[in-house]
Amino acid sequence: MHIADMHITPVAISDPPLLNAAGLHAPYALRLIVELVSDDGIYGLGEIPGSVESEAALIAARDVLVGRDPFQLNTLESTLRSQLGIGEEQRGDTPWDDRVFMHTLSAVEVACLDLMGKALGRPVCDLLGGRVRDRVPFAAYLFYKYEGGGGALGFATDPQAAGWAAARQAAALDPAAVVAQAQAMCAEYGFKSIKLKGGVFEPDAEVAAMQALYEAFGPEVPLRHDPNAIWRVETAIRAGKQMENILEYFEDPTRGQENMASVARALDLPLATNMCTTSFADLPGSLRLGSESIILSDHHLWGGLRNSLALARICQTFGRGLSMHSNSHLGISLAAMAHLGAAVPNLTYACDTHYPWQCEEVIEGGRIDFEEGAVAVSGEPGLGISLDRAQLARLHEQYLACGLQRRDDEAEMQKVNPGWTFRSTLW
Amino acid sequence: MHIADMHITPVAISDPPLLNAAGLHAPYALRLIVELVSDDGIYGLGEIPGSVESEAALIAARDVLVGRDPFQLNTLESTLRSQLGIGEEQRGDTPWDDRVFMHTLSAVEVACLDLMGKALGRPVCDLLGGRVRDRVPFAAYLFYKYEGGGGALGFATDPQAAGWAAARQAAALDPAAVVAQAQAMCAEYGFKSIKLKGGVFEPDAEVAAMQALYEAFGPEVPLRHDPNAIWRVETAIRAGKQMENILEYFEDPTRGQENMASVARALDLPLATNMCTTSFADLPGSLRLGSESIILSDHHLWGGLRNSLALARICQTFGRGLSMHSNSHLGISLAAMAHLGAAVPNLTYACDTHYPWQCEEVIEGGRIDFEEGAVAVSGEPGLGISLDRAQLARLHEQYLACGLQRRDDEAEMQKVNPGWTFRSTLW
Repeated sequence: MHIADMHITPVAISDPPLLNAAGLHAPYALRLIVELVSDDGIYGLGEIPGSVESEAALIAARDVLVGRDPFQLNTLESTLRSQLGIGEEQRGDTPWDDRVFMHTLSAVEVACLDLMGKALGRPVCDLLGGRVRDRVPFAAYLFYKYEGGGGALGFATDPQAAGWAAARQAAALDPAAVVAQAQAMCAEYGFKSIKLKGGVFEPDAEVAAMQALYEAFGPEVPLRHDPNAIWRVETAIRAGKQMENILEYFEDPTRGQENMASVARALDLPLATNMCTTSFADLPGSLRLGSESIILSDHHLWGGLRNSLALARICQTFGRGLSMHSNSHLGISLAAMAHLGAAVPNLTYACDTHYPWQCEEVIEGGRIDFEEGAVAVSGEPGLGISLDRAQLARLHEQYLACGLQRRDDEAEMQKVNPGWTFRSTLW
Repeated sequence: MHIADMHITPVAISDPPLLNAAGLHAPYALRLIVELVSDDGIYGLGEIPGSVESEAALIAARDVLVGRDPFQLNTLESTLRSQLGIGEEQRGDTPWDDRVFMHTLSAVEVACLDLMGKALGRPVCDLLGGRVRDRVPFAAYLFYKYEGGGGALGFATDPQAAGWAAARQAAALDPAAVVAQAQAMCAEYGFKSIKLKGGVFEPDAEVAAMQALYEAFGPEVPLRHDPNAIWRVETAIRAGKQMENILEYFEDPTRGQENMASVARALDLPLATNMCTTSFADLPGSLRLGSESIILSDHHLWGGLRNSLALARICQTFGRGLSMHSNSHLGISLAAMAHLGAAVPNLTYACDTHYPWQCEEVIEGGRIDFEEGAVAVSGEPGLGISLDRAQLARLHEQYLACGLQRRDDEAEMQKVNPGWTFRSTLW
């Protein structure tokens, strides 16, 4: 078997006006859909965050991949690394991570695993050591947001919506609205853990939102707060002290391993990260300094499912917890996250997902169901999903029409608040 | 596919009277051959060091394994761990490692991977990320030894032997004989690196042997010396200083992470280990103390090929080198070592193997060839080997006849030198 062709399709999916430390989500989130086609006509799927830079890298990767055996993942990685000419990449300060090579590698690796699994008649999790669980739990991922559902409606609201569909469009700018959002999302999806994306309002307001969630949901629902690394050390310690008794973990309260370590020492509260320690190269420093006790893996950013397994093993070996990060995504990514979550013995926290915030899909059968907050891991070959080509074409048209080229939450925020700028440290 | 049956066959293979810190090799080395048979009649092979304790564990494992899917390696491991009732195991002080659970897990994991590969029509290395090399280099593994070829001949020598077959039987008790052994082994196998198992004679004599090897082979042949952890810190430093300019690495010069770290700080010479840091639980201490810079993996002792890959990734992440340890073994183990060596990008040293010291085989086609010191990695499904059942039966008969129940080099030495005792620290 060899890779005979590779299709790369940029798509745009409607995304509500969600707020974070770096600004505002655009009306559309961009994704790149990768399809590796084998010489015997099987295809494997991958999905990563979209940008013209990542699209260009994938187009360059196609020349490397066509003609090669998808099982040779080690060689594909080293060849891509040398051929793509992308040097050492830095993660940068934004809440999201734009490292093009790691995204490219992830798209290719997941598509190869899907192709391998389909060719072998085995689910992807069985190529990763087999499933330790049949259902992978996810957490409610709350956002401060402006009114609106995103997409063609822009910031407008569909007045026909009810339940979560209405809450998804409602503004959430204070503790009461955050609690209402959580209640609607948990009622719809059955999530048993809750995370609030913070770094938006001043710390006391965000602490008040977490306290309101704690009062509404009680101690049996684990809570997490994520200021997106923009707080100063003293602020993170002060706010953290107020949340010591109500949080399951405190995610990226401040920036950098030294600062995180200072906060970790001062608080009786586990720190988690997807901004401070984000690569294998970062791990020695993290362990030496004790900058966090939980790593949020993300196969899109760590270079695929096998790299994520390696990260999991490192966390297990060195006594670190493991959770999972997410960006706005479609069902290919969710299926990959579910197979990974099925195969990692020490994935002991409910995973993050933005999935409830999107309404569209590129996979046959439409949106993936959550049952009691969990996704069932497919037993079908590969990722267990197939492309809905009509939807793929529609979302590609939407991509072309929206004109977005990469994620830029600061630019989106400036459309609403002229002169607003992202500050990597605030409060 | 499920595991329908499991065959466990203890075998004994002729082994010469090799010396080490804990005594003398018996005339036979014991191995356990594991065969997992699937419901569709395919079989997967595993091989581990033999002992009645490991055989009992494998017999207990059979009850856990029959009826299960060989792809569910994560679940097989956790179920074996809970069902076998083997608690936390300590490695102990001998040069070899008797941890029954890790051996059992290794036998099962390798046999499952062989079974998976055969069922899928793919070589095992392709289930480990694919091959980064087609030939895995091994090192000449020299021993001080008494005269004799082992086996039915006991300590006697076959006068018809020539070349390596003669050198294999010759005594080697001084530097000149060690050099002659190296020359014969390298001429036969083409090895490009040389290791001497030490811990046998007083340190100055062993340093002299290494210096003689250096003079005979020159700086282009990497040399390693392994005192089996029995030297005191001061002795290891003093002898190490004398070998700083001639060794590629210095293996287990002393016992324990603190002592190894003291030696490491004092020498400008990389330390390697398969006795000091031998489990995932040992790794945090190794990194914290800097007790060694090279870990010798061994899939028999680390619980299989996937665990060995995880160890490799940890070595890569934390800037540690990786080499490979061996005990007396047959072709099933050698094939597994080759597939692992093919799939580990950072296996940057020639691997150890005792293979030249044995003459028998249990696989069809007989002894595996070395070309220029390397083993070609099979592209056939699974490990690429099959059982020679006549030889298996013969070596099992040999096991029954020899009466050995477990490795005990001290007892063997006492047969030659009454009153000799193994001392875990000497010199």
